[in-house]
Order: sequence, then structure tokens, then C-alpha cells
Amino acid sequence: MRLFHGLSAFPLTPADASGRVDTEAQGRLLDPLCAAGVDSIGLLGSTGIYAYLTREERLRAVRAAVARVGGRTPLLVGIGALRTDQAQGLARDAADAGADALLLAPVSYTPLTQGEVYEHVRAVARATDLPICLYNNPGTTHFTFGRELIERLAGLEAVAAVKMPLPADGDFAGELTALRCRTALSIGYSGDWGAADALLAGADAWYSVVAGLLPRLALSLVRAARAGDEVEVRRIDERCRPLWDTFRTFGSLRVMYVLQDLLALGTAEPPRPLLPLGDADRERIAEALAPLRAGEAG
Amino acid sequence: MRLFHGLSAFPLTPADASGRVDTEAQGRLLDPLCAAGVDSIGLLGSTGIYAYLTREERLRAVRAAVARVGGRTPLLVGIGALRTDQAQGLARDAADAGADALLLAPVSYTPLTQGEVYEHVRAVARATDLPICLYNNPGTTHFTFGRELIERLAGLEAVAAVKMPLPADGDFAGELTALRCRTALSIGYSGDWGAADALLAGADAWYSVVAGLLPRLALSLVRAARAGDEVEVRRIDERCRPLWDTFRTFGSLRVMYVLQDLLALGTAEPPRPLLPLGDADRERIAEALAPLRAGEAG
Repeated sequence: MRLFHGLSAFPLTPADASGRVDTEAQGRLLDPLCAAGVDSIGLLGSTGIYAYLTREERLRAVRAAVARVGGRTPLLVGIGALRTDQAQGLARDAADAGADALLLAPVSYTPLTQGEVYEHVRAVARATDLPICLYNNPGTTHFTFGRELIERLAGLEAVAAVKMPLPADGDFAGELTALRCRTALSIGYSGDWGAADALLAGADAWYSVVAGLLPRLALSLVRAARAGDEVEVRRIDERCRPLWDTFRTFGSLRVMYVLQDLLALGTAEPPRPLLPLGDADRERIAEALAPLRAGEAG
Repeated sequence: MRLFHGLSAFPLTPADASGRVDTEAQGRLLDPLCAAGVDSIGLLGSTGIYAYLTREERLRAVRAAVARVGGRTPLLVGIGALRTDQAQGLARDAADAGADALLLAPVSYTPLTQGEVYEHVRAVARATDLPICLYNNPGTTHFTFGRELIERLAGLEAVAAVKMPLPADGDFAGELTALRCRTALSIGYSGDWGAADALLAGADAWYSVVAGLLPRLALSLVRAARAGDEVEVRRIDERCRPLWDTFRTFGSLRVMYVLQDLLALGTAEPPRPLLPLGDADRERIAEALAPLRAGEAG
């Protein structure tokens, strides 16, 4: 099951100031991901600014991506929304447009209970036949999945995977063991600066922001981990450290907009109120990027 | 300036399962607020589920409220949105429909910086001539205004007030003094269980959830505080304690849906994924409400 294993790359979704998606620019970001051989593409994730796009624009983005990718790489599509009926509609849109799987973030405004999120996921799961990856990212959704809730949700046929935040105590092995004792879910992680540890501990997947622009770099890390070559994993991770530091300082989304520009892969700006980073910050990101560019030549 | 002083009552916005606002049911909630003499109505606040309604439905709600209230009570309208252009559009809609002021919540998905929220508010302030109340509620917006940011924003002509969360250390007097040294903003608080302390410390306004259904109860507390009658304030607050406890346990929004039903003021349900509370919880709320009902008879 390539979908929820290995490297899932999360590209930006280029859009203009009014929130209209530039599908041609999106295509130029997707082609290198397919060519590099990532295992899946996480379209309209947090990095794909799904939260800032209308249902219509999200559908346009999925349709254009399906046409562009043309079956080369499985497409995991973010369908998070504040309302259950909205998320169901987005799920149907994604399914109709040809997505391979759904990424469901329990976005919240009023803080949600565990029981509310259970019913939310259940209702969305019924809307299509596609497999679902739960999106556990308290930093953006402001909802924290309890372990019992994950276990209950794993009982739903459609729920196939979970995308976890980095464990606060760094104990990936303990968390993976605990989840695998009670569920058959694919377990992956986001938070690029913790990917090396997650993969070495045996995580099924890395839901990677940096892979959205530097897929070969991310693949080299995944492959070294798969080969059990811890020395090589650590070497790559160490080379990335200055970039990870900018992700943590500025938020990975803001850094991605600078990276696409530095790599001449796009010129889109973040949706306001998010602001483009200033010159000093861009300079710091350029320095962190410099040693990582060599490996990307296709 | 009645707008940002005294009691601002935050009613529910009744809507069906698809998110269509029932403007007639909304009107039945607004009439008692005007009749009781609240100082302003906070339409489409968090309690008014603005985050779960489309721009079209929000505009319908404002138009209907303006027509229903007919100038009896100033209308403060929530215009929070994830995108700056959306918030600007909502501000223009509210102004065109006849709102008296705007309540601007810096809703976030990607965590926002202080500078981004400054530019966001500045851009929204330019969209209309209406005065703005900043909505500082980290529990729902997931953004915390630093004191420096509040001071900077107070320099914008349109920014007239701030709705603060209860101070973590309970030091209302210290916070009021600090803010008043540096700004001319009206300073009000939300979090009904802290209203007694806030008002006794001299806060300008109470942005009240309970006042959306029990306006006379809330007015009695405000008037006792204005009269300097601390004994009476404490007596009323103490009678409300069991209700405040349910607000803190279940979230005030979920409790308000039960209260409207118990008071025979409406039958709307919360927007899914929020779920109606179960029988045991409703029973607890009914018990907390019982001693508070007497004073509401108009």
C-alpha cells in the first residue's frame, strides 16, 4: 500500500491574492514530485493552504492535479473543514475528481470533544468509498486525539492511517508499539525535524513538508532509513538542521514560500493575513538551502 | 458611548442542519434583549456561531437583525474570518446592512504572528467607517494579543475597544491600569464566571454569553457593580455559580443550546460536529437554571 507508506510530499497550492488557484503553477510543482518517485502526494494539506481556499477552488485544484499526475503518483487530498457537512461535501468532491485517499483534519473553532470528533469522522467516512488518513496536528486544528479515540476510529473500515505530530517526549518507539498493539493503522509522522527519528523507529510514513519542494532530499533520508543505515540518516538530517531550524522559527509554511522562490519553482505568496518573510529571514533560509540544492537536480 | 460600555449580550444564531439561518427565530431571541435594555447586542459572536456560517448567511442574519432591532439597541457584528479579504468583505456587508460596530476576531489556522495580526486589523479597518472591537479570545481564535500589539492597534482610528479573556492571574485591576496607561480603548471582558470581578475592578464592558438568553439577570449584575454594591454583585454571582460551572465543563455554547430549549426560546441545534448535550448534562443545566429564572419575567 504505497498510499500511506514511505514518503508523502506536501506541495504548496499556488493561489493569487483573491484565493484563486493557479492550476498551471500547481502542475509545475507536482511534476518534479512524480519524477522523483515520492510514494504519494498530499494535496491541499496545511502546506497546500486548504484552510484558506473555497470549496470551488479546492475542487479545481484536485481536478487539475488528477489530470496532471495522471496516475503516476497516488493523491491524498485534504478535506478538513469546520462543519461536518462541509467536510462531507469536500470528500465527495475529491472522490468524484479522482483522488486516491482523503486526509481528514478535525479543524475546530469551538473546542471539540473526543466524542464529537468520532461522530464527525464517522459521518465523513460514510460520504465516499475512499480510505481516510486522520490528521492529528493540534498546532493547527487545535484538537488533540486521545489514544482511545484513535483506537475507536481505527474500527471504522475507511480509517486506514493516522498522521501523528512528533511525540512530546520523543519516544517514537513507545508510541508506535502502543498504537500497533491496538490498531492496524498505518502510522506516519509530520514535523520534518523529527522525521529521522520517526523513520529509524519504524514509522510507516513521513508526511513531509520539505518533500513538496525537495523530494530527492527527502527520499534519500527515507531510503537510508529503510536500508537501516542510521549513519547516513543522521548525516542527511544533520545537513538539514539549519533548514529545520527555520521551519521551527518561522513556521514551515512561510519558509516554503521562500524556498519555492529561491528554487525558481514559483512566485505565489501566502494567503493574507500570512505575510511573506522579510529580507533577513530570506537570507537565513537561502543559507540553509545552499548545501541541500545539489541533490535535487533531476 | 453605549456601544462598548455596560452589557453586551451575545445571542445564539438559530440555523438549520445545513447552516441556513432562521431569521424569524433569531428575531424571537433579539426582542427580549432590546426589551430588557441591554447596552448592545453582539450578533454573530462565537455564541452566534459566525465561524460555522457562510458569508451569505451572515449577511442575511445581520439584515434581519437590523430590521428587527430597528435602532432600539446598538448592533456589534462579528466579522472574523481566516482570510483578510474575507474579513474585509464581511465588514463591508455588515456596514452596508446597518451594523453599528464590528467585532474582529483574528481567527487562525496557521499560527499568526503579532505583525500579521496588526496588518490584518489595519486592512479590515480600512474597509468601512465603523468602529472596531478587537476580539481577544485565544481559546477559539488560537491567537494571543501581546500588550504591545494592543497598544499599536489602539493607534488605529477605527479601533475603539478590546474584548479581553479573563486574566490568568485574576488581576483585573492591574491589567486595566496597564492598558489604560497606554491606550484610550474601552476594555471589556468575556468569560461570564469572571464578570463580577471584572466589573468590580472597573471594566468598561461585559461581553456576556448568558445575557443572550437571561439579559435581566446579567443586567442586575452590571447595575449592582455600577452602583458599587459589592455585596449584591457577589450574591448574584454566587447564585449563578452552578451555571458558570456548566459553562466551564461543557463550553458555554453547548449550554446555551440547552438553555434556549429549557426557556422555550428556541429549538435550534448546534452546528455539527458540535453535538447537543445528553440527558444527564441537560438535567444538571436545568438545576443550575432553576433559581435564576424568576428574575427574567419581562
